[in-house]
Amino acid sequence: MASLPASDRPMPTMSPGIDDVRSAARQIEGVATRTPMLHAEALSEALGCRLYVKAEPLQRTGSFKFRGAFNRISRLDKPALARGVVAYSSGNHAQAVAAAAKLCGARAVIVMPKDAPAIKVAGTRRQGAEIVFYDRIHDDREAIGRTLAAERGMTLVKPYDDPMVIAGQGTIGLEIATECRAKGIAPDLVVVPAGGGGLIAGTALGLEAESCGAKIYAAEPFGWHDHALSLAAGARLKAPDPSVKTLCDSLLAAEPGEITFPINQARLAGGLVVSDAEVFRAMAAGFADLKLVIEPGGAIALAAVLAKKVEIAGRTVVVVASGGNVDPATYRLALEHANNA
Amino acid sequence: MASLPASDRPMPTMSPGIDDVRSAARQIEGVATRTPMLHAEALSEALGCRLYVKAEPLQRTGSFKFRGAFNRISRLDKPALARGVVAYSSGNHAQAVAAAAKLCGARAVIVMPKDAPAIKVAGTRRQGAEIVFYDRIHDDREAIGRTLAAERGMTLVKPYDDPMVIAGQGTIGLEIATECRAKGIAPDLVVVPAGGGGLIAGTALGLEAESCGAKIYAAEPFGWHDHALSLAAGARLKAPDPSVKTLCDSLLAAEPGEITFPINQARLAGGLVVSDAEVFRAMAAGFADLKLVIEPGGAIALAAVLAKKVEIAGRTVVVVASGGNVDPATYRLALEHANNA
Repeated sequence: MASLPASDRPMPTMSPGIDDVRSAARQIEGVATRTPMLHAEALSEALGCRLYVKAEPLQRTGSFKFRGAFNRISRLDKPALARGVVAYSSGNHAQAVAAAAKLCGARAVIVMPKDAPAIKVAGTRRQGAEIVFYDRIHDDREAIGRTLAAERGMTLVKPYDDPMVIAGQGTIGLEIATECRAKGIAPDLVVVPAGGGGLIAGTALGLEAESCGAKIYAAEPFGWHDHALSLAAGARLKAPDPSVKTLCDSLLAAEPGEITFPINQARLAGGLVVSDAEVFRAMAAGFADLKLVIEPGGAIALAAVLAKKVEIAGRTVVVVASGGNVDPATYRLALEHANNA
Repeated sequence: MASLPASDRPMPTMSPGIDDVRSAARQIEGVATRTPMLHAEALSEALGCRLYVKAEPLQRTGSFKFRGAFNRISRLDKPALARGVVAYSSGNHAQAVAAAAKLCGARAVIVMPKDAPAIKVAGTRRQGAEIVFYDRIHDDREAIGRTLAAERGMTLVKPYDDPMVIAGQGTIGLEIATECRAKGIAPDLVVVPAGGGGLIAGTALGLEAESCGAKIYAAEPFGWHDHALSLAAGARLKAPDPSVKTLCDSLLAAEPGEITFPINQARLAGGLVVSDAEVFRAMAAGFADLKLVIEPGGAIALAAVLAKKVEIAGRTVVVVASGGNVDPATYRLALEHANNA
């Protein structure tokens, strides 16, 4: 087998640190949006806490994923950019990689599940990426991605198990800490959605960089709560039953990441497990009280807080709303459900 | 008739100036939200322009109205605050006055139409205000407001024909100009919803304060396009047919304001008239491309741009999305419509 070009060798399994997060913040500045941290006034009153929502639906491409993708892709050298990038993703990483590649002048091929939300497929296509569809049940998306990368000499940009991707997501932690300081508040709890664990690992590093002492919790959909189980067991465990259906299409990683888990194990207080009905209520609360469109997976941390999966009375709580790419039909269903609840 | 206490005398019909807007910015700082100006990336691409949206749904109480209400109420003296405030409003000014009064420790009585959106009634009630309902067809809300103010010795906070209210809304103009400068862009056009004309009058003053040379357009629902007609005629004219139904419940003022109109007449380029179907499409675009919940009246400036009521090709365009207080049923209808369009 011919030796691969430098950028296509498997990334070393190295853990990103605080300096990588700070470097990512400089890298994405002026390109990524510094999203607002919204005060959820009515919800705070109803819950008896001070609740803030970091609004990543307002991020470029509609989710936090742009941070990591741009941090990773914009650091590639010219020859690697000329060969292009490959990613596999249920849709948010897809759009982010496609957008970051376009900004960096690189071609992108995205491996997406056939049942990805239409809004995510359209968003990826609009960024000029080539899309290769796979079947969630029968195909191995990682293998498809690796093969494409090898065949075409492209760089594989993994969705979470990549130090520069994690560092990019970590800018959210920096921003939360900085904004809390500006508002004169000290968060007791930070709750973050967890799929492969890249967002929460980065956020934990970013908060640590700013000496934020908040307890950090992962929020996951029932059936896909591999972080809750793994954190409790102290070892990477698979989701108990990945045949369980959930609306949270962006959180369907069956196991914590290889690089992300040690970071999370050392820093998280635990995992919170949430039902789809609770997610619907959080989406409706985002609509009514924040005027923010949040997709199911993006609303799971807010859902965990609204359902009081952890003690919040009297506390200052920050949740990350991680994305807003949801099809209108699903959103209408969420609002309808909340109306009848 | 006994003489009224000082704060209950009718406000002199005086016009606010640039200094009043700057003073308002200092008055609301740290209390009102400095809302983001979102780049509408996908819409810009589709329209062939650079489109930005000032996101007032993310303002406290879900609309721009908080700016003017807080600027007005927080300047009342202690005796006036002790007697409380009265306002008449279809719902956004209602919530804003109730919230500002609560923050200033004043009681608030709000005169609202019986058919106001439920979310606006609930929001007003949550702020602890007393609500008096009126009938849009048969009752004179201004008379009810004046009577209540006189009977209870309360200060009437008008929705637009008040210099300090206009100055408060003007902080939006200052923020747009400042943010454009920070982004290194110079807007060619600024499009703003117009009901009584307070928001657009203030915005025009704020833009002028920052030497922004953009052309400013008022957007209005068909049938209630009194600004379009009045600006063209050079005199305050009533809406041609106020029996026309529109979804834009927040824009049902039948005539430009007495104080607002001279400000607008001297500064606006004209009025753009928009249909409810166009408003629905703008709400759906806000959902899909901005992840921002926008109410019908709040989406009218965006609707005018999407429907190309003015030449936008190659231009830098800023629209004000003025509020996001919409009932779920109406929002679901907007998304459904857009799905089938």
